[in-house]
Amino acid sequence: MILKIAVLAGDGIGPEVTHEAVKVLKAVASRYGHRFDFAEALLGACAIDKYNEALPASTLQICREADAVLLGAVGHPKYDNNPDAPIRPEQGLLAIRKALQLFANIRPITIYDKLIPQSPLKADRIAGVDIAIYRELTGGIYFGEKFLSDDKTVATDVCSYSVKEIEQITHMAFKAAQNRRKKVTLVDKANVLETSRLWRRIVTEIAKEYPDVALDFLFVDNAAMQLILNPKQFDVMLTENMFGDILSDEASVIGGSIGLAASASVGDEYSLFEPIHGSYPAATGKGIANPVASILSAALLLEHFDLYEEADAIKNAVAVSIEQDFCTLDIDPESTYSTGDVGDFIESLI
Amino acid sequence: MILKIAVLAGDGIGPEVTHEAVKVLKAVASRYGHRFDFAEALLGACAIDKYNEALPASTLQICREADAVLLGAVGHPKYDNNPDAPIRPEQGLLAIRKALQLFANIRPITIYDKLIPQSPLKADRIAGVDIAIYRELTGGIYFGEKFLSDDKTVATDVCSYSVKEIEQITHMAFKAAQNRRKKVTLVDKANVLETSRLWRRIVTEIAKEYPDVALDFLFVDNAAMQLILNPKQFDVMLTENMFGDILSDEASVIGGSIGLAASASVGDEYSLFEPIHGSYPAATGKGIANPVASILSAALLLEHFDLYEEADAIKNAVAVSIEQDFCTLDIDPESTYSTGDVGDFIESLI
Ligand SMILES: CC(C)[C@H](C(=O)O)[C@@H](O)C(=O)O
Ligand SMILES: CC(C)[C@H](C(=O)O)[C@@H](O)C(=O)O
Repeated sequence: MILKIAVLAGDGIGPEVTHEAVKVLKAVASRYGHRFDFAEALLGACAIDKYNEALPASTLQICREADAVLLGAVGHPKYDNNPDAPIRPEQGLLAIRKALQLFANIRPITIYDKLIPQSPLKADRIAGVDIAIYRELTGGIYFGEKFLSDDKTVATDVCSYSVKEIEQITHMAFKAAQNRRKKVTLVDKANVLETSRLWRRIVTEIAKEYPDVALDFLFVDNAAMQLILNPKQFDVMLTENMFGDILSDEASVIGGSIGLAASASVGDEYSLFEPIHGSYPAATGKGIANPVASILSAALLLEHFDLYEEADAIKNAVAVSIEQDFCTLDIDPESTYSTGDVGDFIESLI
Repeated sequence: MILKIAVLAGDGIGPEVTHEAVKVLKAVASRYGHRFDFAEALLGACAIDKYNEALPASTLQICREADAVLLGAVGHPKYDNNPDAPIRPEQGLLAIRKALQLFANIRPITIYDKLIPQSPLKADRIAGVDIAIYRELTGGIYFGEKFLSDDKTVATDVCSYSVKEIEQITHMAFKAAQNRRKKVTLVDKANVLETSRLWRRIVTEIAKEYPDVALDFLFVDNAAMQLILNPKQFDVMLTENMFGDILSDEASVIGGSIGLAASASVGDEYSLFEPIHGSYPAATGKGIANPVASILSAALLLEHFDLYEEADAIKNAVAVSIEQDFCTLDIDPESTYSTGDVGDFIESLI
């Protein structure tokens, strides 16, 4: 297979971890006889520095011409406490999601047995957890109108959802559940929000088309508790943009390190793969960042193109690296392996 | 001291647990020579059943005439999956918060050493946790305009915050921090939301008036992780309504049981005290509900009127009950003690 992959390494540790993912993808290509062409482009703070735009038109063009996008991370501390910055790196991330209509962000949460001791949760709660979070990614309060009154005394963010926006990700979540444990949990706040009540109505209707899948509902506050109390109860978790942001980050730490959590953002035409972790400025350039989340994002990319054997090769190699404790510092505080060492080791197993 | 306390026992297990809290308050009154007068009124599903209103005017009147309100829980499953119900029990709760202008919801999170084994988190993470969550309670997306388009294809919720709304709770949070470990963490999503950027600006300004208190910032997705990874880092956590709803529920389970978590909702004129747990329909009438959260809410009520010795008497009695394993089923799965047994035991220690 020939795949053209746009590589947006981004900011902070983004370039370091993405470098390892590309390395592993190249190993897969040569081992399985594929051709992967990589096209690099800027996004986030690095793009602002160069073009004064978080998502330059040239970057978007490269993404549109590619079969898939591999993204590192965006964000730089110089923008974090500057609410008045006219352009912020995160705008690039939001803009690319919207421009490529990546309406579903899929975050798989699984646990490596070896890492159970590292999890903040007790072993009996987390052994065997296997969740797929389906977060709506191009709607809701992220993309609604925002304004500050002229006298700067009232700020407003508008959260809207249309039936169509709810439908498209809901079908995707139910289809995923059919190939899993056949359960979808809709997380909302239907006791307070109009948008949640629309979600509940539409999802309930769509569920009838998937009689083999069970649907249940959870208020978001309760979901935040249940993820800690009994994460094993979840199969597919479906939710809107902001709730998905919060819950998927919460869920990502129960596996022992956010350095392992990958995600796929997909739409009807385009797809983008990125680690859940951010740009982690404090670790930049130190060679201590965990490349596994980025490498597993590359595996999700391959799965997206039905290259399951290839994706499994990556996932197995990652499992071996964890099993053999060939890990970065976040996983093993005594480790002396660098980002590149871990990438090399995983590459060598492909 | 003479206190008039409005008692809104509400729905589900609300009446059972509130009954125990009132019992304990009566014991405090007689032991310390106070006079507490209790006035009961309906709120939630029970009010809808009788008056077709979730917050009847008569209930509000009773609350306004009282010095404080003790609330049980509201909610009934018959409304949960009926997005079209014209009146829902939760509206009563939201309406009373708004009517009494209870702009700050304060949720203390502490850990009983005895219960560390019950926590879903590992001991080293939670021993010594002591957090006070300050959640804004009468603004944001809870109380913004909501609408469904005429063709029912687009739903909208508006989230607004004014400088004044942010200021009043922020001062309260900083004052609380001065009597604690002198740290306030503002939780927001300033990289996405206009309202969050206003929060960040106003809170940063107000912080200058409290030079002895350190202020830091955390994005809400990160906060959801940090609460599990390292909850000890938090002293006072300040946040808007919806984020506070999610994070305080998440935080409440790290202590071992949500059956222990109490809250105070206060404004300039009125105050209301309620357990964090809901109406827990499945347990209703079985005598298995944990009355401790309601009893500790009564202790918060006493503290609000500077009756610290009396509040400590309750807190110590609760600690003894936990130390001696005189607990309901949620705490000890082998327990045979009922809601009333636990209430009696705590009462006997006052
Ligand atoms: C950086 C930020 C805007 C982004 C989001 O909130 O979506 C991030 O937290 C994520 O989850 O990808
Ligand atoms: C019942 C519900 C409306 C309420 C809220 O979301 O505020 C509850 O979850 C709470 O936290 O008191």
